[in-house]
Amino acid sequence: MNFNISDKMANMKGSMIRELFKLAADPNIIKFGGGNPSPLTFPVKEIAEITAKVFAENPDSVLQYSISEGYIPLRETLQKYIRDRFNIEKGNNEMLIVSGSQQAADIITKCLVNEGDTVICEAPSFIGCLNTFRSYGANLVGIPLEEDGMNIEKLEEALRNNKNVRFIYIIPTFQNPTGVTTSWEKRVKIYELAKKYDVVIMEDNPYGELRFEGEDIKPIKSIDTDGRVIYCGSFSKVMAPAFRVGFVCVDNELFGRMVIGKQCTDVHTNTLFQYICNEYMTKYDFAAHIEENAKLYKQKCQLMLSEMEKNFHKDVTFTRPEGGMFIMAYLPEGYDSAPFVQDAIKNSVACVPGTAFMPDDSVSNAFRLNFSTSSDEDIIKGIEILGKMTHDLLDK
Amino acid sequence: MNFNISDKMANMKGSMIRELFKLAADPNIIKFGGGNPSPLTFPVKEIAEITAKVFAENPDSVLQYSISEGYIPLRETLQKYIRDRFNIEKGNNEMLIVSGSQQAADIITKCLVNEGDTVICEAPSFIGCLNTFRSYGANLVGIPLEEDGMNIEKLEEALRNNKNVRFIYIIPTFQNPTGVTTSWEKRVKIYELAKKYDVVIMEDNPYGELRFEGEDIKPIKSIDTDGRVIYCGSFSKVMAPAFRVGFVCVDNELFGRMVIGKQCTDVHTNTLFQYICNEYMTKYDFAAHIEENAKLYKQKCQLMLSEMEKNFHKDVTFTRPEGGMFIMAYLPEGYDSAPFVQDAIKNSVACVPGTAFMPDDSVSNAFRLNFSTSSDEDIIKGIEILGKMTHDLLDK
Repeated sequence: MNFNISDKMANMKGSMIRELFKLAADPNIIKFGGGNPSPLTFPVKEIAEITAKVFAENPDSVLQYSISEGYIPLRETLQKYIRDRFNIEKGNNEMLIVSGSQQAADIITKCLVNEGDTVICEAPSFIGCLNTFRSYGANLVGIPLEEDGMNIEKLEEALRNNKNVRFIYIIPTFQNPTGVTTSWEKRVKIYELAKKYDVVIMEDNPYGELRFEGEDIKPIKSIDTDGRVIYCGSFSKVMAPAFRVGFVCVDNELFGRMVIGKQCTDVHTNTLFQYICNEYMTKYDFAAHIEENAKLYKQKCQLMLSEMEKNFHKDVTFTRPEGGMFIMAYLPEGYDSAPFVQDAIKNSVACVPGTAFMPDDSVSNAFRLNFSTSSDEDIIKGIEILGKMTHDLLDK
Repeated sequence: MNFNISDKMANMKGSMIRELFKLAADPNIIKFGGGNPSPLTFPVKEIAEITAKVFAENPDSVLQYSISEGYIPLRETLQKYIRDRFNIEKGNNEMLIVSGSQQAADIITKCLVNEGDTVICEAPSFIGCLNTFRSYGANLVGIPLEEDGMNIEKLEEALRNNKNVRFIYIIPTFQNPTGVTTSWEKRVKIYELAKKYDVVIMEDNPYGELRFEGEDIKPIKSIDTDGRVIYCGSFSKVMAPAFRVGFVCVDNELFGRMVIGKQCTDVHTNTLFQYICNEYMTKYDFAAHIEENAKLYKQKCQLMLSEMEKNFHKDVTFTRPEGGMFIMAYLPEGYDSAPFVQDAIKNSVACVPGTAFMPDDSVSNAFRLNFSTSSDEDIIKGIEILGKMTHDLLDK
């Protein structure tokens, strides 16, 4: 059988990370490749408690079909939460529950993008969403990411020179894959440019709660007066990924379209985990839980950074994130990290080459390291192996 | 803010059923409108038991990120199950777990359909999937559904006359909305036509387990020798809808594409409910559970049918399903059921007008009644109200 694959899907490659993920079953591999939160952060006891209670008292409420918009109490809790926490006012915004924020990208693209339309993104950026955009036949235009966010001149150039730019995709806080946080000044400028060129911003903030250093910077959505910013959040990194619960705060008009998109994508998100999120946020100490997570990640990040300083060749540079889960390391200019990463896997350390995150698959000297998943012992051992490899490569 | 909605989504209407669903909160409405399984069928005790055990013993296995293909033991269990139960051999087929079979339609369409391509479906058919096809800009061609399945001549005509037919969408057993089951002879013919015109068949079988009368008829997939049939199943009607777990048995080549589609749609389906499905199928008496469900639905269906015979005007006809959840009733030719249904809602009985299920939104004299959700008391009361309405309409 020869299938006629649609144009948009015919040339899609799977996520290298999802492929690496399959190595996860091998206990001998040190796992710096994925984006898994530490299982130590899962509030298992509370999840089990909430679940047992609802199954005992009101099982149908979490087992029967539910509305596509999402579990109403959770939507209300989140609206209040992002107002208090991130200065995001309700205004004309509505809250849509989605099956992880990956699905937010899927439904937003479905609603806004015709084949051949342009989506502007950071370069590098999160491969999962880049692939979602590709799966709708979008034309991706990457803007070089600097220490404090996108290069603003290049962004304006892209907005000026590309037809049908539908939205700018940005992960402003503890970006994946770099760990970079976009400065407040650049957030304001990006918003102003979006306004000037009348495009939408998709602001993806799965890591925003995981700050362990420095001062909070408010989301772009907090200054959005005309509804052009779509704010996406997730429980994957602060509760558990397999919940598959994320959320979207979006202007009422687009919300209506997105609900229809949600209906014909998966009807609604599984209800039990929506219920657990709401119970946990309202009846337990969510803030303390977040703080605990951040504390753990701070320790792991600092350990990884200090081991990198100790072990890596001095010509290998790297980002110093103030939160999140990722550090980006850079071989000297001109080096391709892909064969380096291949060798690392042979040496039982998994990490991801920068090219995987490029909107245009260009060669990259970078590789992404995840510090949230591994034990301290594995961090020390894995960085030692990678460090030795950098010396083997660069001392020649 | 004026959003530029994509062409494919700009004219989409939401599912009338999802809108009716919102009436569900009103305890005074008798609910023949939805497609909810009876909450009496949810194996709550066992679900709670399995959940408590896995949270106590191995919580990370159901809370951490997992592979996009789905939980491996469940995929294996299902492969064996559909072989034993439905004669579907593994061959080159693979099993993909999806977030309800609605998502199967979404990912299949993403992989196979370019905007403007044709999808052939039964007329009427399941509105959720019709909307999914529309959300990819597909051109829908409906084939009149007869007592024993699609009109075969019309099907061949459609295959001959339409360009780029990507697949035939069919719910062969206890069809939604009609309750009609496609005969074995027609299944074979549909497969032969698909072969002759080299198109794929998407065979959607969410109700196949819910037979309470007559003899099982094997799925089309059971005679598929060249991998052109994509078989979709769901746990929504035999475990619980809010699990959001469905599955797709699909040729290995298309499977690879669909996994990529799944990755960029929602990464993977929530793991706990995949785990529960597998535990329940392998360690409990799944067959007895199914039998219990069918017994309940038989009683409810017979009750509704006998009340319809008693109360409905003699010129109103209706289908007599051998399983599933739906009866389709037909006002005499020339009547539009839409105002009738509007009046029914005013009289506190929700049902769905046939037009909602038409690929081309043409007027319909039919309305769909669900018998699985309501109490016996509500069935009697609701049919009495509708019956009186048919007399008011037709006795004039």
